[in-house]
Amino acid sequence: MIAVRLRSLAAIALGALFPSLGCSPALPSPRPDVETTNAPRPAPRWGIAIHGGAGVLDRASLSPEREAETRAVLAASLEAGHGILAKGGSSLDAVTAAIRILEDSPLFNAGKGAVFTHEGTNELDAALMNGHTREAGAVAGLRHVRNPITLARSVMEKSPHVMMIGEGAERFAEQEGLELVPERYFYTEERWQALQRALAAEKKAPPPQGKPQGFWESPAGRDHKFGTVGAVALDQAGHLAAGTSTGGMTNKRFGRVGDSPIIGAGTYADEGCAVSATGHGEYFIRYTVARDVCARVDYAGMTIGAAADRVVMDILVKAGGEGGLIAMDAQGNVAMPFNSKGMYRGYMGADGITSVSIFRDR
Amino acid sequence: MIAVRLRSLAAIALGALFPSLGCSPALPSPRPDVETTNAPRPAPRWGIAIHGGAGVLDRASLSPEREAETRAVLAASLEAGHGILAKGGSSLDAVTAAIRILEDSPLFNAGKGAVFTHEGTNELDAALMNGHTREAGAVAGLRHVRNPITLARSVMEKSPHVMMIGEGAERFAEQEGLELVPERYFYTEERWQALQRALAAEKKAPPPQGKPQGFWESPAGRDHKFGTVGAVALDQAGHLAAGTSTGGMTNKRFGRVGDSPIIGAGTYADEGCAVSATGHGEYFIRYTVARDVCARVDYAGMTIGAAADRVVMDILVKAGGEGGLIAMDAQGNVAMPFNSKGMYRGYMGADGITSVSIFRDR
Repeated sequence: MIAVRLRSLAAIALGALFPSLGCSPALPSPRPDVETTNAPRPAPRWGIAIHGGAGVLDRASLSPEREAETRAVLAASLEAGHGILAKGGSSLDAVTAAIRILEDSPLFNAGKGAVFTHEGTNELDAALMNGHTREAGAVAGLRHVRNPITLARSVMEKSPHVMMIGEGAERFAEQEGLELVPERYFYTEERWQALQRALAAEKKAPPPQGKPQGFWESPAGRDHKFGTVGAVALDQAGHLAAGTSTGGMTNKRFGRVGDSPIIGAGTYADEGCAVSATGHGEYFIRYTVARDVCARVDYAGMTIGAAADRVVMDILVKAGGEGGLIAMDAQGNVAMPFNSKGMYRGYMGADGITSVSIFRDR
Repeated sequence: MIAVRLRSLAAIALGALFPSLGCSPALPSPRPDVETTNAPRPAPRWGIAIHGGAGVLDRASLSPEREAETRAVLAASLEAGHGILAKGGSSLDAVTAAIRILEDSPLFNAGKGAVFTHEGTNELDAALMNGHTREAGAVAGLRHVRNPITLARSVMEKSPHVMMIGEGAERFAEQEGLELVPERYFYTEERWQALQRALAAEKKAPPPQGKPQGFWESPAGRDHKFGTVGAVALDQAGHLAAGTSTGGMTNKRFGRVGDSPIIGAGTYADEGCAVSATGHGEYFIRYTVARDVCARVDYAGMTIGAAADRVVMDILVKAGGEGGLIAMDAQGNVAMPFNSKGMYRGYMGADGITSVSIFRDR
């Protein structure tokens, strides 16, 4: 495992901008997009970026087999989105398709691989936003919807609402003919064991009274990762979209909603900027992370890279909020900063080269 | 009823800045705060502003008795918050106390006076944010909590989470010893009849297919108001807070969540700016209204008045989003723009003079 000094985190995160166009290891970090914003702009570079969550992700605990499997799913997700974009499809379709693949994999904390709540249930959240029209759909507290991102899209396109939760959202899913699954669909032994460890750790060291908001019972310091999945894309028409899907956090209390389905927190897109976040959701809500990145681009004249770095590596770090995000602007510049040890992430542009990374350096 | 030309709406809304310090009619609109931001700033003018919803509010349909009763509750709400601020209490306490009074009145669409969903239930949402610490609490989909704003506060102060929904949120309320009420507590004949009219209107003219998002079945064009309640306050320590509470919209679908409990949409506060919104929530979520006002103050150097006007009278009007908001900055400047015919609102500052308005001119 590579030792990473805290003061060098920001510099390293810059390396996440423009993920390497070779598969891995990553290129050094020339950060080309940051300096060229005021120069004449090239044609938009359409493409898609995805994440599969940020967190501790110790190399030691990730077997070569598991790593290969994870990289393969991330690549398949990118390729699904890229295929749509290459044919002139919309960024909204690309984001939806990419996220569905991650939801269907047990490797990520969304859809099939969702973590368990304190009460032993699975509660899924998702959101999708069309930057061009500012239409949005968000769902939370789902227990039977196989692909929450698809329901978020239905809410956006077929209901008069933006956000629907719980049973009401599931009733709407049923009306729309979406695939519903029994609760056992979301059972995976690995997530169940993670909950048992978290419960045991909590019993041993109960949360202190008067704790600061955002305090979280890390499951015995292990498996401390936020496997939320998300995607941002820019299509050939120059339109951005963003989407996020999650099972939340292991041992979260029944009814807790994180940042993923909160427009402006974990998911946001407008004409010039699209963001999907992953991390300790409470902080991402309080700091309206996704909207803040785009507001800095829009009002403060920052590049997407500088804005994303400022929020993730400075504001969130000072607040104690762990995680990362993927962001894309209307020129196709990409930023992928994270202040945790790793973040599953990938990028695929017009050149069709798949780039997938997990750790800082590869 | 005074005729209001559309092109003069913006100018008139400026009159809502610094609501008149006499009770009514309102003073003309000199907009004193807008021009003085770069001048030496006076000591922060602590105070509290509240709203009780925006909408059509035809004078013709508001009886003198009802109007007097409404103004009296708004004044009582202001006085409750003001009393706390005057004694050096926190803006958070002031906002909570002011909103509780509005929740306990059947005249506003929050707490006791909540509207009915399409399915004939009541589902309540609320949020609270401490601008100084950026702590926040939000709840949605409540059916048995008498004062949702109090539960939002408990979530903020006593749970590791920011947002909780539905049964999980109510179970937490029970653990915390909050007052729970049977569903019939929220039954009011007036709101029930409003739902019946909306259902009849919808049956007569069902929503078109392929409607734009945010389309809403206005209940036969009558009673078309959004009675959400909210408050923003600045305390003597210079700290801002914002809170919002609502029953949502008549005839909303079971499980729908509006902007009120979405941090950054209907409710937001940071060190320099606090906002509570009311209106057609779907638009307020998509345009991250509360956060956008504060982002413009923070990053674009706009005054609170100019930022609030821009969002409510320009961006929301263009998008088709009806409603308004109350906003306060760290110098105590207040903006209360609305693009609907009226907005229940009030202000009370250090001088202790209560100002309450409903229509544009009084």
